[in-house]
Amino acid sequence: MPTNKSSVALPPNGDCRVVIDRITPSVEGGIFPVKRVIGDIVNVEADVFADGHDSVAVVFQYRKRGTKDYTELRMEGGGNDLWKIKFIPEDIGFIEYNVAARIDHYTSWYKGFEKKLAAEQNVEVELLVGADLLEGIAGRANHEDATILRGYAEALRDDSKSSARRAELLRSESLQLIANAYPDHTRETRYCRNMLMLVERKRAAFSSWYEFFPRSFGDKFGSHGNFRSAQKFLPHIAKMGFDIVYLPPIHPIGKKFRKGKNNSLTAEATEPGSPWAIGSKDGGHKDIHPELGTLDDFIAFREEAERLGMEIALDIAFQCAPDHPYVKENPKWFRWRPDGTVQYAENPPKKYQDILPFNFESEDWRGLWEELRSVFIFWIQNGVKVFRVDNPHTKPLEFWRWCIESIKTDYPDVMFLAEAFTRPKIKYRLGKAGFTHGYTYFTWRNTKEEITEYLKELCKPEVSDIFWPNFWPNTPDILHECLQFGGRPAFMARQVLAATLSSNYGMYGPAFELCEHEAFPGREEYNNNEKYELKKWDIDRNGNIRHLITRLNRIRKDNPALQRTHNLTFVETDNTMLLAYIKHTPDLLNIVLTVVNLDFNNVQEGWVCLPLDLLRMDADSYFMVQDMLPETGGAMPDTNYMWHGAKNYVKLSPHACPAHVFRIFRKVRRENDFDYWL
Amino acid sequence: MPTNKSSVALPPNGDCRVVIDRITPSVEGGIFPVKRVIGDIVNVEADVFADGHDSVAVVFQYRKRGTKDYTELRMEGGGNDLWKIKFIPEDIGFIEYNVAARIDHYTSWYKGFEKKLAAEQNVEVELLVGADLLEGIAGRANHEDATILRGYAEALRDDSKSSARRAELLRSESLQLIANAYPDHTRETRYCRNMLMLVERKRAAFSSWYEFFPRSFGDKFGSHGNFRSAQKFLPHIAKMGFDIVYLPPIHPIGKKFRKGKNNSLTAEATEPGSPWAIGSKDGGHKDIHPELGTLDDFIAFREEAERLGMEIALDIAFQCAPDHPYVKENPKWFRWRPDGTVQYAENPPKKYQDILPFNFESEDWRGLWEELRSVFIFWIQNGVKVFRVDNPHTKPLEFWRWCIESIKTDYPDVMFLAEAFTRPKIKYRLGKAGFTHGYTYFTWRNTKEEITEYLKELCKPEVSDIFWPNFWPNTPDILHECLQFGGRPAFMARQVLAATLSSNYGMYGPAFELCEHEAFPGREEYNNNEKYELKKWDIDRNGNIRHLITRLNRIRKDNPALQRTHNLTFVETDNTMLLAYIKHTPDLLNIVLTVVNLDFNNVQEGWVCLPLDLLRMDADSYFMVQDMLPETGGAMPDTNYMWHGAKNYVKLSPHACPAHVFRIFRKVRRENDFDYWL
Repeated sequence: MPTNKSSVALPPNGDCRVVIDRITPSVEGGIFPVKRVIGDIVNVEADVFADGHDSVAVVFQYRKRGTKDYTELRMEGGGNDLWKIKFIPEDIGFIEYNVAARIDHYTSWYKGFEKKLAAEQNVEVELLVGADLLEGIAGRANHEDATILRGYAEALRDDSKSSARRAELLRSESLQLIANAYPDHTRETRYCRNMLMLVERKRAAFSSWYEFFPRSFGDKFGSHGNFRSAQKFLPHIAKMGFDIVYLPPIHPIGKKFRKGKNNSLTAEATEPGSPWAIGSKDGGHKDIHPELGTLDDFIAFREEAERLGMEIALDIAFQCAPDHPYVKENPKWFRWRPDGTVQYAENPPKKYQDILPFNFESEDWRGLWEELRSVFIFWIQNGVKVFRVDNPHTKPLEFWRWCIESIKTDYPDVMFLAEAFTRPKIKYRLGKAGFTHGYTYFTWRNTKEEITEYLKELCKPEVSDIFWPNFWPNTPDILHECLQFGGRPAFMARQVLAATLSSNYGMYGPAFELCEHEAFPGREEYNNNEKYELKKWDIDRNGNIRHLITRLNRIRKDNPALQRTHNLTFVETDNTMLLAYIKHTPDLLNIVLTVVNLDFNNVQEGWVCLPLDLLRMDADSYFMVQDMLPETGGAMPDTNYMWHGAKNYVKLSPHACPAHVFRIFRKVRRENDFDYWL
Repeated sequence: MPTNKSSVALPPNGDCRVVIDRITPSVEGGIFPVKRVIGDIVNVEADVFADGHDSVAVVFQYRKRGTKDYTELRMEGGGNDLWKIKFIPEDIGFIEYNVAARIDHYTSWYKGFEKKLAAEQNVEVELLVGADLLEGIAGRANHEDATILRGYAEALRDDSKSSARRAELLRSESLQLIANAYPDHTRETRYCRNMLMLVERKRAAFSSWYEFFPRSFGDKFGSHGNFRSAQKFLPHIAKMGFDIVYLPPIHPIGKKFRKGKNNSLTAEATEPGSPWAIGSKDGGHKDIHPELGTLDDFIAFREEAERLGMEIALDIAFQCAPDHPYVKENPKWFRWRPDGTVQYAENPPKKYQDILPFNFESEDWRGLWEELRSVFIFWIQNGVKVFRVDNPHTKPLEFWRWCIESIKTDYPDVMFLAEAFTRPKIKYRLGKAGFTHGYTYFTWRNTKEEITEYLKELCKPEVSDIFWPNFWPNTPDILHECLQFGGRPAFMARQVLAATLSSNYGMYGPAFELCEHEAFPGREEYNNNEKYELKKWDIDRNGNIRHLITRLNRIRKDNPALQRTHNLTFVETDNTMLLAYIKHTPDLLNIVLTVVNLDFNNVQEGWVCLPLDLLRMDADSYFMVQDMLPETGGAMPDTNYMWHGAKNYVKLSPHACPAHVFRIFRKVRRENDFDYWL
């Protein structure tokens, strides 16, 4: 039988009357970080209220994680108990933030006092209450302000003056400033958990990736390339406007069970093997494949890329060829079978005998985790800041959370791209674990409906808070049938879509710019895949779309609207083959309208119905649209059109150029009564 | 400069590979309890997955809070990494629940094994792996099962038999049962926080409240009533079908600053005062107003109500008249002004000198909290299980959380109704703090659009998880202008709406059943308010709507569809004055369609368009509707109509009866080919 005394303990701070009920942005109440970009405006909101009628004061608090003191910014009440602030992160890395609030007794009293005055009530006692409050503040103030406050308190108590005259004293602006300068924190409430934000550098929001195999770029056409020879290909990539050069794994390639041409089970002695079968007597994940050169060669290659304004992204694939040194040195990291062999990778009935996965249930998982992390650290210390991680979804999600948090705590400018084509929840969880970007289903979203639905999912919170897409129209693993059969128009259209829908995009470069479309029969894969052999790329081959790619990368650099992904609005058209969308900066000074013909064979035409409200234009506005991507694919100057009202006509031939990328200029009247296009 | 060693600690259970990403229902990740009713089906879902292709096993765990061991139920995978279970709480009170999951190594292996067999691969080594796994399970099994498992392991290793024959052994059902009976919990993952559920008794979901002032029901018409005399009024309430009798505060009424008729500042010596001005020399919150009788009289009154199938709800108003004993005994609980008086309640410029609020910032807030809690405990120990709490939003939210949690831990059948007509977020937070019901804005939602929008908000998670409405068409404080000017049809229509939209509803009874509509001029309040004087209610007065109320309470009891609030679906009509909605049980065995004429003056007619999909009926179904509320307001027998298809016609006269409450019977064909109405 319960007693009269409560069996549930009293909370420690029961006299703190303010409640903070919800803070946004946040992911699962602060368990995972919200992703943002340095310099962007973060709209922080909180529901804050107290019992009764008292005024509350609310502050936003933030600090770099691992530091002690918070910086405080005053939040503004926005009605309906919602408090707001626009916060601009100024450093990259992890930020902890929270909201703190308290009753503002002086303001509460002062507001009531003014109402009583207005109602001509007797305020003698109220003046004494106010005097007490000012003296309370004086107790927290510096000597000078305390003296001023006590002087006011004394004056309020001086009943030789009329209460009206004493009330007048309270309206002094300097008094109000001082009275609000020393808040009483003794009964302050904070939300029960800190929220977490991961602030990324600018390139995390806006990047253009180009993937190629250095070994296919030898000194002689067709000879085995290395960093020194492949370095000569870098200016070609830079000229097209890419800023990240992504290399498949550069480590020694295993000899045991090496795969041959077209993934055949046996390799000739001369065949180079798959770079993803990592490790041999020449070393493992911290070594360089001898045929590619030395660490110094790699560093020279990286420095040349940087000189051209690009960064190197390395591919980190945590798996081993059977002859990887780890197998002998750390047998506990693998799963051994009863016949004394190591368990290879499989997805029954498929077998990958050239690949040994790590056993993350190893009793030495701690040693394994630290070693894998040290692989990143090794390459970071050799100047690499971008990693494409192969198949992260086959390693524990908690490993990634720890590994990325640990690395980004020390090196906040390092970026990770998750190559996970797996189930949606796992992909999003990798985002929560800290991956900067993720590969997406973009490749398999081809119709207007598919693209619209998918992008809407990616752009809505909290997906947009944790998962940033990186759109790839092709990879060495994937040659979608639309590229196999759609011809050059398909490559052009998919390139426009990738480059204008997502601010981060990339391509498996030589194959894409040359519109390589020969597939292994019946598969969504390249025939004679570069993964298993050296390729001879004739980079100037007829029919290449280098000009279009270059033009699009230029447009992306010139238009801040295209440098973010989540600022996307789809635009109605009356033709299911015409996909249209707008991106704009928050201030509307940069507005880009893209219209793509999704039919790779036929001319399509129709009406585009612009959301004039969104663009703050009237129904009969005239505005100028400048096609930044005219039909010849970059050679012609920009073409301008005058448009009027919401509905405007477009017509796109897939062969000439399957898309318009318009910049919209609104007519704005300035003070001196001249019109400008803005 | 960072070292090679990670600066972020390794998690303790890094080898647990399963991830639990989200559990629903939950409120703010388990900080607040989700409300549910005993015996109802709770659909629990969780996102659960692991890296790679292994099978996972997922269990739902729950326990009464404060106990140690969890009960476990196996969850079922529903695709897209979503795991589900239907959970039926069997006890009232707080439940903690969580989800636990692990890799199921035996099943993972067995599935791969079967695929390899099907692909006619050599499985010799696989059989050895399987044997090792069975021996691992044997290590956790009881003696008998361990012997069986080891026998199988030995047989799998016996290469004198063909692998096909050994594979056959694995298909034994009894082996599969045993192999799955001893799960390995060593690498089990649990979600990082327990979720919380508050399971309420049935009446929390379905109750009908009747409020009256016992003092107005004296032995002689007009004399001061007491519990003995008012007891004679209880059968009248019971006969109408109410189950909760709610009394305004029954404590001694203060004499200092007592309010007179119509809230006047001075009271004649004979005036009874407001019951909400609590405390005098006769006692405080644990005492009974002498004119109402003794504690024994109250208990007899309560027992008589219980004999009639009803419960008593007491009004708890945590505030004091200036002559409340607390003021002298515990001066620290009040805010003292510089002139030596206690701060009274005010909302400037309004003053309430007869009411002293508690000072919840008191240095003795702990003593105050314990004392206030003990007020509830006192009345609970005298048999009261339902409390209507006056103005809870002027007391700290955290006080309520602690107080209700503490009380419901010991007395889980106690119910609290929050009388808070304040801002939406505060009302919802009171729900999170544990209030069973809350007063609502129903009174001020009158048009079709207003009602529809408001109910949709109340019925959607997570509002529906934490805030359960209690609809009151009137209270002693509120006489909405629609009742002032709408006449008897307004009372009827608002009664139907309250009783059929919300499964919990109540009325300030005598005034409502008699359609009392005289307002204080220009206010939304009763003239000659019963709060300040004794009323003489002629309960059989002409024009009363007792029959309608009785009929509706009967319909509510007969139709389980009306015993829940969140099972509401609005139904389209072609007339803005006709509001229609359906409630049904999950099994569709009880379907109620209500159509209300919101025009209190004119006949309205139109077409009601039923959602046949929802009711699982074809477009040309015939079905029977039975009007349970025929025009004469209860005196006539039920009226049946045959309806056909989605669109059906209705016509409602406000004066006869402004609503239909139809039960819908669908035609169902049974095995023996006879049709039934169900």
